[in-house]
Amino acid sequence: MQTIDSITIPKREDQSHKGDYGRILLIGGNQNMGGSIMLSSRACVYSGGGLTTVCTHHSNHTALHSRCPEAMVSDLNDIKRLTKLVTEADCILVGPGLGLDIKGNNTLTFILQHVQPHQTIIIDGDAITIFSKLRLTLPDCEVIFTPHQMEWERLSGIKIDDQTPERNRQAADELGAHVILKKHHTELYLKTGDYKIDKGNPAMATGGMGDTLAGMIAGFIGQFETEEAIKYAVYIHSKIGDQLSQTMYVTPPSMIINEIPFMMKKLEAK
Amino acid sequence: MQTIDSITIPKREDQSHKGDYGRILLIGGNQNMGGSIMLSSRACVYSGGGLTTVCTHHSNHTALHSRCPEAMVSDLNDIKRLTKLVTEADCILVGPGLGLDIKGNNTLTFILQHVQPHQTIIIDGDAITIFSKLRLTLPDCEVIFTPHQMEWERLSGIKIDDQTPERNRQAADELGAHVILKKHHTELYLKTGDYKIDKGNPAMATGGMGDTLAGMIAGFIGQFETEEAIKYAVYIHSKIGDQLSQTMYVTPPSMIINEIPFMMKKLEAK
Amino acid sequence: MQTIDSITIPKREDQSHKGDYGRILLIGGNQNMGGSIMLSSRACVYSGGGLTTVCTHHSNHTALHSRCPEAMVSDLNDIKRLTKLVTEADCILVGPGLGLDIKGNNTLTFILQHVQPHQTIIIDGDAITIFSKLRLTLPDCEVIFTPHQMEWERLSGIKIDDQTPERNRQAADELGAHVILKKHHTELYLKTGDYKIDKGNPAMATGGMGDTLAGMIAGFIGQFETEEAIKYAVYIHSKIGDQLSQTMYVTPPSMIINEIPFMMKKLEAK
Amino acid sequence: MQTIDSITIPKREDQSHKGDYGRILLIGGNQNMGGSIMLSSRACVYSGGGLTTVCTHHSNHTALHSRCPEAMVSDLNDIKRLTKLVTEADCILVGPGLGLDIKGNNTLTFILQHVQPHQTIIIDGDAITIFSKLRLTLPDCEVIFTPHQMEWERLSGIKIDDQTPERNRQAADELGAHVILKKHHTELYLKTGDYKIDKGNPAMATGGMGDTLAGMIAGFIGQFETEEAIKYAVYIHSKIGDQLSQTMYVTPPSMIINEIPFMMKKLEAK
Repeated sequence: MQTIDSITIPKREDQSHKGDYGRILLIGGNQNMGGSIMLSSRACVYSGGGLTTVCTHHSNHTALHSRCPEAMVSDLNDIKRLTKLVTEADCILVGPGLGLDIKGNNTLTFILQHVQPHQTIIIDGDAITIFSKLRLTLPDCEVIFTPHQMEWERLSGIKIDDQTPERNRQAADELGAHVILKKHHTELYLKTGDYKIDKGNPAMATGGMGDTLAGMIAGFIGQFETEEAIKYAVYIHSKIGDQLSQTMYVTPPSMIINEIPFMMKKLEAK
Repeated sequence: MQTIDSITIPKREDQSHKGDYGRILLIGGNQNMGGSIMLSSRACVYSGGGLTTVCTHHSNHTALHSRCPEAMVSDLNDIKRLTKLVTEADCILVGPGLGLDIKGNNTLTFILQHVQPHQTIIIDGDAITIFSKLRLTLPDCEVIFTPHQMEWERLSGIKIDDQTPERNRQAADELGAHVILKKHHTELYLKTGDYKIDKGNPAMATGGMGDTLAGMIAGFIGQFETEEAIKYAVYIHSKIGDQLSQTMYVTPPSMIINEIPFMMKKLEAK
Repeated sequence: MQTIDSITIPKREDQSHKGDYGRILLIGGNQNMGGSIMLSSRACVYSGGGLTTVCTHHSNHTALHSRCPEAMVSDLNDIKRLTKLVTEADCILVGPGLGLDIKGNNTLTFILQHVQPHQTIIIDGDAITIFSKLRLTLPDCEVIFTPHQMEWERLSGIKIDDQTPERNRQAADELGAHVILKKHHTELYLKTGDYKIDKGNPAMATGGMGDTLAGMIAGFIGQFETEEAIKYAVYIHSKIGDQLSQTMYVTPPSMIINEIPFMMKKLEAK
Repeated sequence: MQTIDSITIPKREDQSHKGDYGRILLIGGNQNMGGSIMLSSRACVYSGGGLTTVCTHHSNHTALHSRCPEAMVSDLNDIKRLTKLVTEADCILVGPGLGLDIKGNNTLTFILQHVQPHQTIIIDGDAITIFSKLRLTLPDCEVIFTPHQMEWERLSGIKIDDQTPERNRQAADELGAHVILKKHHTELYLKTGDYKIDKGNPAMATGGMGDTLAGMIAGFIGQFETEEAIKYAVYIHSKIGDQLSQTMYVTPPSMIINEIPFMMKKLEAK
């Protein structure tokens, strides 16, 4: 397993416009866990996603816009509009704050039925648990799972203590998906290889940190090749956390997000 | 085509008051794209517009006030109040996040019917598409269009690849309006001449950037002579973007807005 | 007329608690102009008012709390609660964004009927216009009016061009109130003397600036003797504006507010 | 009574995750005093609480999320969900902005009936007054009261002038709870000893300061041993206040909160 100890982000083309950086659709946030999708959304925008639309319970629209007017919103109950948004997206993130009830089930099932081969889907948080529980099958497109260890146990059937690189690799292959296993030193089981990040620190052990990473991956998928996008996102997320933890005992996700454009610039190709 | 490579903003008169800096009316923001008009509104206020009122779907009022309490709000469905606001305004911006449905059509048609000769109207975003689609006619007042290349194709009938300065100039003349053609190096087809901005960079290629520029133009129209206002706004918008992009890979529009009063001061006449 | 060219704010007593710094009640903000009372509220809190309660249209509660969780809220339509709040307050500010319709009339009339001799009332913005229009009479307590020149014309009957210090002084005496006449160099007609502030600048000529000053006065009334409170507020408001205008072409009221605690500290007695 | 004049916060374990830092449930905020629980919530998150859920009147959800998307929300009227949340929590804070009416009574009574022996409950603000008024009995778990002097009078029956360390100690013993008596120099009557903080200053005498402290205690209980958590919270709260008051005449609670992670880091064990 290779350690990612540096990355270089490509420069943007001068002639480019927002359409070149992806149409990202973020889906999640029920009446109780709307903050999750708000974090993902702003992380996506601050990661450079071209056009970000957030499909969430309507009670979350105002707070989301208060924090991030750069994103568009849609009501999760408006299926007609959701269908249109899914059709138009380049990348779909589903799961942050989605909830584990029947509505969450229905939303995930709907998305998996409508996603198209040219799209990339990121299955995060509650959507991983629902996927595992309902034994859903993967759509025919690029799929990224972002489980923490317990969610990975649910998804792969491998108990946390048995989650060795070999078994994880095998399970990822069987799934036919990229797997980002979030832990002290996050591991990436990508289709073309295994990677490890030796960054990150316990100041990042706080609610919303995973939602933020998921939003970053979504924003990066809009801009970069899939496996590169994943590596960049995980690396930058942890590197910002390490930087902030020099002066902060805990690093609130909102403050991680603020730093994304600056860290990306530092890592940009000369 | 002359390149604008410096500008100087006039000093404010000591004895002036907010009424001297314009009554600006911003119209846009449906239930899904309210963030657009929120960006325009704060951009207008931070550009020094005297009194800013925002007519938008009522579901956007709270988030707008959360970000910008300096603006007043009105419900886009309250036609009686809209009529009054249109009558009182010096400058009207219509379009950011307006939506392309029947409500958007009706709003734009209504505004064009009620605008008065002494007013200036800025037609932006969805309002450009609606204007093109419905083949509306221009009102008898100063009109500014702010299309990106695809919107300009819709408005002028000139395919993107054929959008040469000569053809653009001719189309602007036929329209009888000022045209700000947003692209890598934005071009201005003003009534008295053609200009080009060689600033701006791909870190600005992100959703909401055009809404921000539109709000700046509106705020400047309240303070400065029309063509000067346009030049100032486009120049400052790009110059801030260039400055931020020194340290940011992507420049979220919200952060562009924060810098407006500072950049204006740097460019103020001595 | 004496120019106030320096002030010194008393140090707080070590043994003091929030109850020593006043119960402030702010009343204003209809459905369209809620931003005004939001600015007043945060200005009051950042000026050190002990306990701040804001009575405003319920549609403003969320945005107000988003910006200033330190304040409590009440629905302007809840008369029973308003009655209780008026009874408990040390200082009442009425007017920012109140509106000029029948509801505004009723609110002001109600407040004037219920204010008590030991309280101080600040009549600002729309409440000045309503007071003038309805020819209301002053309650038997300390009253402060904060008109700009046009509002002063309505209140005093003196045309703007005729507003000389002598005539203003006489009108203030006839009113039996403190008058803060907001203009390029603001004039104070206090019960014990006339003062002038030679600070302030046209970067402050923007919507919401008066609401901010009104909130500062309210917060100061809770802490300091009446005439001192007025002088401090007007002086500090202008001094912050002058400081910010060194680097900003326009000084949004929200940014004025951020500076209040810092400027107060600079001016604190040694 | 020992003076706490320094503290050292333990380093976090590398292998830890958010679940190790507590599930915190915050309960409070009626329709008028929602700002209180918003302050507590963000203070809890910025203090490093692992997972923060806020049970408050639904009208507060949007503003809470606008300020702190890291927290989850629940409607105070949804008793079924409240029951579940109480069951799952490690630490429960009840009181900030709860209100003194029948609903506040019912909420507190409900919580006291459902809290379990392994949990810690912090009774703050209005909940102290209700507890005193209804002469409720303490549940069989760790209990922390955070009264100011008047609330302590209600709770202990000791008049403010008679609140000597000896009598306070005795009353705390009789209560069988930890007592944090908030005053100029806050006193801690913990089960194993008495402590005093000689920090804090009158710039902190402003509404919402107690809500902020309560949220910090809750966040710390999730991470540290109970008595240590209390000492850390009171010490850090005052120390931040002292630091900010070097440059600020009044220290708004929102700004205290911003500093928590930084001050914690400064006090972290080497």
